[in-house]
Amino acid sequence: MSAQTTARHRVVVIGSGFGGLFAVKKLAHEDVDVTLVSRTVHHLFQPLLYQVATGILSEGEIAPATREILRGQPNARVLLGDVLDVDVEARTVTFAGEGTTTTLPYDSLVVAAGAGQSYFGNDHFAEFAPGMKTVDDALELRGRIFTAFERAELASTPEEVARALTFVVVGAGPTGVEMAGQIAELANRTLRGEFRSIAPSTSRILLLDAADRVLPPFHPDLSRDTQDRLRQMGVDVRLKTRVTDLDGTGLTVVTPDGATKRIESETIMWAAGVEANPLGRLVAARTGAETDRAGRVVVAPDTSVPGFPEVFVVGDLMSLDKLPGVAQVAIQSGQHAARTIAARVAGRPVPGAFRYKDKGSMATISRFAAVAQVGRIRLTGFVAWAAWLFVHLLYLIGFKNRVTTLLHWAISFVGRGRTQRAVTKQQIVARTVIDRAEKSAGDQREHDVSGTVRA
Amino acid sequence: MSAQTTARHRVVVIGSGFGGLFAVKKLAHEDVDVTLVSRTVHHLFQPLLYQVATGILSEGEIAPATREILRGQPNARVLLGDVLDVDVEARTVTFAGEGTTTTLPYDSLVVAAGAGQSYFGNDHFAEFAPGMKTVDDALELRGRIFTAFERAELASTPEEVARALTFVVVGAGPTGVEMAGQIAELANRTLRGEFRSIAPSTSRILLLDAADRVLPPFHPDLSRDTQDRLRQMGVDVRLKTRVTDLDGTGLTVVTPDGATKRIESETIMWAAGVEANPLGRLVAARTGAETDRAGRVVVAPDTSVPGFPEVFVVGDLMSLDKLPGVAQVAIQSGQHAARTIAARVAGRPVPGAFRYKDKGSMATISRFAAVAQVGRIRLTGFVAWAAWLFVHLLYLIGFKNRVTTLLHWAISFVGRGRTQRAVTKQQIVARTVIDRAEKSAGDQREHDVSGTVRA
Repeated sequence: MSAQTTARHRVVVIGSGFGGLFAVKKLAHEDVDVTLVSRTVHHLFQPLLYQVATGILSEGEIAPATREILRGQPNARVLLGDVLDVDVEARTVTFAGEGTTTTLPYDSLVVAAGAGQSYFGNDHFAEFAPGMKTVDDALELRGRIFTAFERAELASTPEEVARALTFVVVGAGPTGVEMAGQIAELANRTLRGEFRSIAPSTSRILLLDAADRVLPPFHPDLSRDTQDRLRQMGVDVRLKTRVTDLDGTGLTVVTPDGATKRIESETIMWAAGVEANPLGRLVAARTGAETDRAGRVVVAPDTSVPGFPEVFVVGDLMSLDKLPGVAQVAIQSGQHAARTIAARVAGRPVPGAFRYKDKGSMATISRFAAVAQVGRIRLTGFVAWAAWLFVHLLYLIGFKNRVTTLLHWAISFVGRGRTQRAVTKQQIVARTVIDRAEKSAGDQREHDVSGTVRA
Repeated sequence: MSAQTTARHRVVVIGSGFGGLFAVKKLAHEDVDVTLVSRTVHHLFQPLLYQVATGILSEGEIAPATREILRGQPNARVLLGDVLDVDVEARTVTFAGEGTTTTLPYDSLVVAAGAGQSYFGNDHFAEFAPGMKTVDDALELRGRIFTAFERAELASTPEEVARALTFVVVGAGPTGVEMAGQIAELANRTLRGEFRSIAPSTSRILLLDAADRVLPPFHPDLSRDTQDRLRQMGVDVRLKTRVTDLDGTGLTVVTPDGATKRIESETIMWAAGVEANPLGRLVAARTGAETDRAGRVVVAPDTSVPGFPEVFVVGDLMSLDKLPGVAQVAIQSGQHAARTIAARVAGRPVPGAFRYKDKGSMATISRFAAVAQVGRIRLTGFVAWAAWLFVHLLYLIGFKNRVTTLLHWAISFVGRGRTQRAVTKQQIVARTVIDRAEKSAGDQREHDVSGTVRA
């Protein structure tokens, strides 16, 4: 790998999600050399992951290759790797990719490694209830959802059919609402007529949350509208309900009146919590910064780490002003960090504190129905859904992805089809495999880099 | 699962590829009940698998859900399952799917289980050199191909770069030629400008075959045209070259002059041989039929098993008249078996011997170049390529798949993009996982069904 000229200011960006990518792009015309390090080859458009999980879109459309996106930015390069360590004194980042370990020097560092699913300490839930944060998650869920119907068709007793056709979504934020709505559409519309022994519309779809309403970040009117629509679609919404245990045959919950109840289900998805990437704790340990309860790094108002003005933490990994871990926060904070770096390099006044511009929130419920709020404006129904489509198309990177996504939406929303129903062996065995592979890679890493790995 | 009325003739079809699917469809208006048993939920359009492996198409477009295809055929039902045994005396099929074991009675049976990759006895090659017969294969290859370029970008020595950028395709039939051509296009065109340390066009792409020309089933003029084009694209075509060993760092070959040579490569794909699904040997063992060297069942002229006129073997699993394992043979033999069954049920004269109508062969080499032959007519270049596109679109099942495939072709062939470059953890760890999962499932099966499993 060629060395970069030391004359130019070197920026290293960790992560190829919204925060990292938009930080890199914001530096396109600045006198800096940018290296983006990511553990995926692709930039993931998370808001549409649920459409991969339910067969509307292929993973390719929401996960374009990062280096293809940045091809036209000469001062940027992309390297595949998993960050092992950050040395904030020597100003280097060490990462491992494809069997190679590399140490990169930086003048400025933007840590945008994001967040993963949180099981609130019950990590063993993950094997039975995939989250919705990565392409692997979505593909695994897709396999489980579609084979659940196959299982029901093969079942010989009504109890087996019922258990196979019971779907549970834990977490009634936008992701959970979207998944529940889509499974209801699969059951009631898409799969109708395809089976001979079962009626897919007899599926039970449960949406659970410990909160007292769905979509807690939204205005209560929109929560109510969403809940009504979900119920009309046959989704059983259970609020003030807490999950205490979970395994391959179902879950145990505590109901609003305090009773313990068992729900039998073989297809459970977890959309209930997020926790920061472990890099958050690493950066905090190295810099003395604090982390919040989710592991996010508490930053200064300009998104830099207190005492380390050249190190920035943005997006889902950042804890600032109680900002939520949503796409707009990641985009804007990433851009803010980049503008700050650029200003310093050019000798311009720095932008100062990061001021988040809330451009609103949206969540889709079903075909032709969504909720959206921007300031005091609230939209529901078809208008909200059209707005949702428009905004998501706008932010989807890549012209060709937009075209194919539009086409798939026409197919799935106007038509009734799903073009992505292939189920591979990879998907079914994914969870245990990935865990096993990651564990042995982690053990190996501990062995290799014992001196520099964080405590 | 509901029992079917015993009044109607019951047809069981094993396999959802070309042979099985077209057999089922041919029986749509007959007085029979058809059950299609398949171990995948999808019908796989194999000829376009190489486009999944190289990022042009998503797996969904070439693998639509079988039960969606057959939704409108009331006398057909689809069940997911892996066939464990066929009892030709009792006329039952036993299969396991999603934890359930089912035994189905039949009046007629069509075995269309297809073929898999053959490593000519060297099954350990499979871990390092995926084949091209399933969606899992294609996705795994896609992951390996795209991460090979990532590895090269990270490499620190020229030797590492060279090894990462050496791609070997074993087998110069249509599949191998198509793969080699596509990787050359990736290296020379698609990925150009996306890397900073390497030039993808410096990739070495080798296409090996023990035969003395590429595309052996084609006319020698077309073989020569293909070889010329491949060489112009920078593909190193090595004929009369036999692979004797293969591992994670390369392969050992015997060159035309008898010398042994080592080729260093970390990305090897195997398109060199096919062997019949093990169900072929099972059926042969149960019926006393013979199998050929590839494990295919030698059938009577009407595709039935000698001595068992109600059992048919079609497609890649069938050995008849030296017919090759190509899509048209599978389609036509599947339809012939169905017509024979239908005639008997209706009391009509049976069609008699299966007469294959050779509708020609085609193989694509690169963008705008293919070869095609129909009888004495031979086409090359752009005309052949246009014909190839047209024919494949025609046979791709599902209107929406055709539309999205056309769109992706426009993107990849007119434009230079690939919309499907996502690499997931599932893909990378797939091979060892699937093997391990299949092995434990196989062991479990041996344990469960010890009395009925074939020798």
